Amino acid sequence: MNIIYNKEEKTLENGITALAIAKEFNVPLKEVLVAQINEKIIDLSRSVNEDGEIKFFTFKDKEGKKVFWHSSAHVLAIAVKRLHPESILGIGPAIDEGFYYDIYNLKIGDNDLQDIEKEIQNIIKEDIPFKREDISKEEANILLKDNKFKLEIIKDVNEKMSVYRNGEFYDLCRGPHVPSTRYVGHVKLLKVSGAYWKGDSKREVMTRIYGISFPSKKELEDYLMVLEERKNHDHKKIGKELELFEFSEFSPGSAFFTTKGAVIYNELIKFAKDLDKKYEYSEIITPLIAKAELWKISGHFEKYKENMFKVTPFESEEEYALKPMNCPFSAILFKSKTRSYRELPMRLSDYGFLHRYELEGTLDGLFRTRLMEQNDSHVYVMEDQIESEMMRMFDIMDDTYNPFDLKPIIKLATRPEKRIGDEELWDKAEKILKETLDKRGYNYEIKEGDGAFYGPKIDIYALDFSGKPEDAYAVSTIQLDFNLAVRFDAKYIGSDNKEHFPIVIHRSIMGSIGRFMGIILENSKGDLPFWISPVQVRVLTITEKNAKYAENVIKKLKENGIRVDSELDSGTLEYKIRKGQLEKIPYIIIIGSKEEEKNTISVRNRKGKTDYNIDLDEFISERLEDIKQRRKYEEK
Amino acid sequence: MNIIYNKEEKTLENGITALAIAKEFNVPLKEVLVAQINEKIIDLSRSVNEDGEIKFFTFKDKEGKKVFWHSSAHVLAIAVKRLHPESILGIGPAIDEGFYYDIYNLKIGDNDLQDIEKEIQNIIKEDIPFKREDISKEEANILLKDNKFKLEIIKDVNEKMSVYRNGEFYDLCRGPHVPSTRYVGHVKLLKVSGAYWKGDSKREVMTRIYGISFPSKKELEDYLMVLEERKNHDHKKIGKELELFEFSEFSPGSAFFTTKGAVIYNELIKFAKDLDKKYEYSEIITPLIAKAELWKISGHFEKYKENMFKVTPFESEEEYALKPMNCPFSAILFKSKTRSYRELPMRLSDYGFLHRYELEGTLDGLFRTRLMEQNDSHVYVMEDQIESEMMRMFDIMDDTYNPFDLKPIIKLATRPEKRIGDEELWDKAEKILKETLDKRGYNYEIKEGDGAFYGPKIDIYALDFSGKPEDAYAVSTIQLDFNLAVRFDAKYIGSDNKEHFPIVIHRSIMGSIGRFMGIILENSKGDLPFWISPVQVRVLTITEKNAKYAENVIKKLKENGIRVDSELDSGTLEYKIRKGQLEKIPYIIIIGSKEEEKNTISVRNRKGKTDYNIDLDEFISERLEDIKQRRKYEEK
Repeated sequence: MNIIYNKEEKTLENGITALAIAKEFNVPLKEVLVAQINEKIIDLSRSVNEDGEIKFFTFKDKEGKKVFWHSSAHVLAIAVKRLHPESILGIGPAIDEGFYYDIYNLKIGDNDLQDIEKEIQNIIKEDIPFKREDISKEEANILLKDNKFKLEIIKDVNEKMSVYRNGEFYDLCRGPHVPSTRYVGHVKLLKVSGAYWKGDSKREVMTRIYGISFPSKKELEDYLMVLEERKNHDHKKIGKELELFEFSEFSPGSAFFTTKGAVIYNELIKFAKDLDKKYEYSEIITPLIAKAELWKISGHFEKYKENMFKVTPFESEEEYALKPMNCPFSAILFKSKTRSYRELPMRLSDYGFLHRYELEGTLDGLFRTRLMEQNDSHVYVMEDQIESEMMRMFDIMDDTYNPFDLKPIIKLATRPEKRIGDEELWDKAEKILKETLDKRGYNYEIKEGDGAFYGPKIDIYALDFSGKPEDAYAVSTIQLDFNLAVRFDAKYIGSDNKEHFPIVIHRSIMGSIGRFMGIILENSKGDLPFWISPVQVRVLTITEKNAKYAENVIKKLKENGIRVDSELDSGTLEYKIRKGQLEKIPYIIIIGSKEEEKNTISVRNRKGKTDYNIDLDEFISERLEDIKQRRKYEEK
Repeated sequence: MNIIYNKEEKTLENGITALAIAKEFNVPLKEVLVAQINEKIIDLSRSVNEDGEIKFFTFKDKEGKKVFWHSSAHVLAIAVKRLHPESILGIGPAIDEGFYYDIYNLKIGDNDLQDIEKEIQNIIKEDIPFKREDISKEEANILLKDNKFKLEIIKDVNEKMSVYRNGEFYDLCRGPHVPSTRYVGHVKLLKVSGAYWKGDSKREVMTRIYGISFPSKKELEDYLMVLEERKNHDHKKIGKELELFEFSEFSPGSAFFTTKGAVIYNELIKFAKDLDKKYEYSEIITPLIAKAELWKISGHFEKYKENMFKVTPFESEEEYALKPMNCPFSAILFKSKTRSYRELPMRLSDYGFLHRYELEGTLDGLFRTRLMEQNDSHVYVMEDQIESEMMRMFDIMDDTYNPFDLKPIIKLATRPEKRIGDEELWDKAEKILKETLDKRGYNYEIKEGDGAFYGPKIDIYALDFSGKPEDAYAVSTIQLDFNLAVRFDAKYIGSDNKEHFPIVIHRSIMGSIGRFMGIILENSKGDLPFWISPVQVRVLTITEKNAKYAENVIKKLKENGIRVDSELDSGTLEYKIRKGQLEKIPYIIIIGSKEEEKNTISVRNRKGKTDYNIDLDEFISERLEDIKQRRKYEEK
């Protein structure tokens, strides 16, 4: 048979193993975990019987990671069965990061994980090979007769089945796996939780053990450090600690912003609207529900219905849907009167609330929600206005990212196979987008064929605290659309006195406002810039006799529009300072008799540095500059 | 039989007519139209056969008006049948103002109304009596065999039927009516439109003729003048002319605010939020949908379900409803942590979008919608905080009404028959409300028994341009609620270290923001105060050579945050000024060579007065004061 590897072709004996092929091609074997022949991933020990192209994957490849973590799940299962023979295995897949195994009749808690980890270490040391065995459905039923979960799986499978064995251990499994347990390297079990069998709340509750593994101890340790750090950056944790938002079982996926959270949220909206004004966008306000007919015209019912919510009056049969996007509504206003080319570019912002149905299990704090509000705009343009409008959008992006030190990662997605609009238009549009990105000196990645069917788009991500591009947050999107105006028959009269369809540029710079709030909370660990902090200044007194002077300080701060609160009751200063620090309040003003005598204030910043003898007016005018310029929070 | 009239009792012969009874009691008969015996309204010509209390109604009473207009509809029908014998009568009821008759097989337009009016005048002069005749269902079927609409009505009726005759004319009708056609006085037919039989779009299209009538010519003329004036004040007309909002068949009852309309809307929101800040309210932001369970707890499913919209994902069976009110969400945030009495009063504002199902036929521009946003607040208080919070709310009301010259009409609604909460609490609450109203020196009306089941409330109306209290707009509401916290088990820890339920004060000062916008548009005829005008200043040039100077003026206005636009192209000044005036732009700045030479501007205000030689900086600083103080628009 003829095998190609890395553009080199060899004629090899039919039926030799993937491992033997690797040796023939002098592939360095140390890190290789699995092979891939003609798009199918297989164990290194499997025979190859067909012509084709072969690849070998290590842990560095996502295919390799998946196999590595899946094999780790098997090793976990071996350990559990050794320690708890009465337990019954469910399923144990690899996930985005690591793996889990769902096991029945296993009563353990997080404290028991260490014992299991020890056994896993033994199993790794024992270096037990993974052995594949193809079996029939009947054989599978006999082999696994004591495991009702596996029997249930067998019932649903029609293709050929296989079992993987490690010594006395076996598991129903399609594979592939690493050659032996030694390859699994270094494992850390992360937590135990409950999970319904098949995710069905009417079925058995399984014990789910989560784990992570890496080839080297160093990689594992680095990962665990990042994990620890990530916890400290988690916006859900910060949101809870700072009392910014809540979620309720009554409305999964819709945040309740508390009085403090709403301050941040509204400052973001104000920021976005100030930029709209600066860059000459105009706001429109549109309905939240529309009849089915609208979503048929817009194409949402065809492409997006599974993410939408149906709305019907309880006492009538009219059928509506909650809007998942604002676009159709801008088109309705655009065509509400005759438009002239003189009105273009028409920049219509819409801060409408959008509902998108997401499975409950996938909801994630402010990051993945069912309700969101975007700083959304639809810009109606003629072809020759695309470039200048793009430049304007990137200006807004820069202005939006800078105060939060967000570093953009830019991806340009070009024409997909299925598309509308003529080729010439696509050529021009892609050219303009590339030229604009080049002119601005941005680095960007091109995702060929990844554009929307209605036009090319640019997606912008922002790096998280770790600085790894693969962990970056999706933030902004800018999309050209040749289709919207056509669907809604929204035209303008050109300078030629004829009717034309405008091109529409969809644009959301912050993305979801709530999500953006989550991102800045994560990146700042809650140490928000002064201008957006819910409580900007807290006033404390050393003793109660300075209360009156403190009240005057508070009054003056309030008059200047600074968000200030106070704790003037008895209680130790130390405790109050500590409390203010935990609440991430940018400045704590401390008033004692010295301050009162000298008519000054002492100011403690978030890092614990205290400045004495500060003039209140000077402090205020500096803070007003912080607000006016939307300054980053710079520690002194 | 014994009959009481106006607290006087007489023994009268059984079976005498209501008219005869009126004479016995010396009732001045000139204006009397109908009688009422034991809550049943009857013709004056009908016999009375039972003991009871009798009343007599004239056109001044709402019962009298209704009969007057219903009889007018009959007179209209007589006229139409005389002129168009082939036409077939449908139904002809009295409505809130006047009456209509739906008639089939009648092809007429507004131009034909004059002929019908002439015939009506003849019929009135002929003074034909209304004669009632009780008939059986069988008799009715025979009498009306040629009218399929009446036959349909007969089919649905089970009670005894009656026919009213005027000479040769007869109509199936329950009555009652005025004694004769002369009573109908003076009639004006207002318009012709189409209407489906029974409002069903699958049924026949009837010709609907609207009319109004009054006892005297003077009253009719006054009404028609008001009607004409009302048209000029109609916010729907103003909204269309000034391009402020649109409606679409895709979402009935939800306004689309254009870029100009959104400016007004957002200025109102900003105004409301500034007042929230001034009076120390804090905003929360809450979801728009919630599960059925929440609405069961809140009681909305029991009391309000027919006004609500059901929400279900297209691909899941979860059941939600769109919120018609914000209250439950504030309760969820209130109870999201342990609350202390020190946190009360807790003033939570929520500008959430609310959906309320209203029948399509009842929708009315911005006044009656399905989507609205209120400047809504829920204030959680202890009993002894009610008064000071009420005072605060009235301060906000004054601040809100003053810039628009709105004159409040206040109504206090007290305990209804069905209610919760102990009597002592009701006593106290009503006492506090009355005392607060008295302290503020407000005139107010008490609506006994009109409160909500959960507490007493104050409704505030604002006079419209006509100044008639009965035409006043409903605007604000302040409601005490003993029930909300109990339903949601939302408690606070009192100074006694025990748990207590707070009382909640619901408060919306503008009511619906959109509706409030409609009200100020109507009362101002679109001549909005400077600070809230979508375009505040327009700059015009006399010739193009002053364009550069004009650009500098525009730039300076913009830098100062003034909303300015311009028309610098060629086109006559006169035309442009007229256009600006029709657009109700507060100030038009005119730039010519004289202005450029002297480095000044000429300013034309909305009333047509032009001031020359104005210093731009002075103009700007005055306008900034207009904005800062939210000044009414004072003509100079």
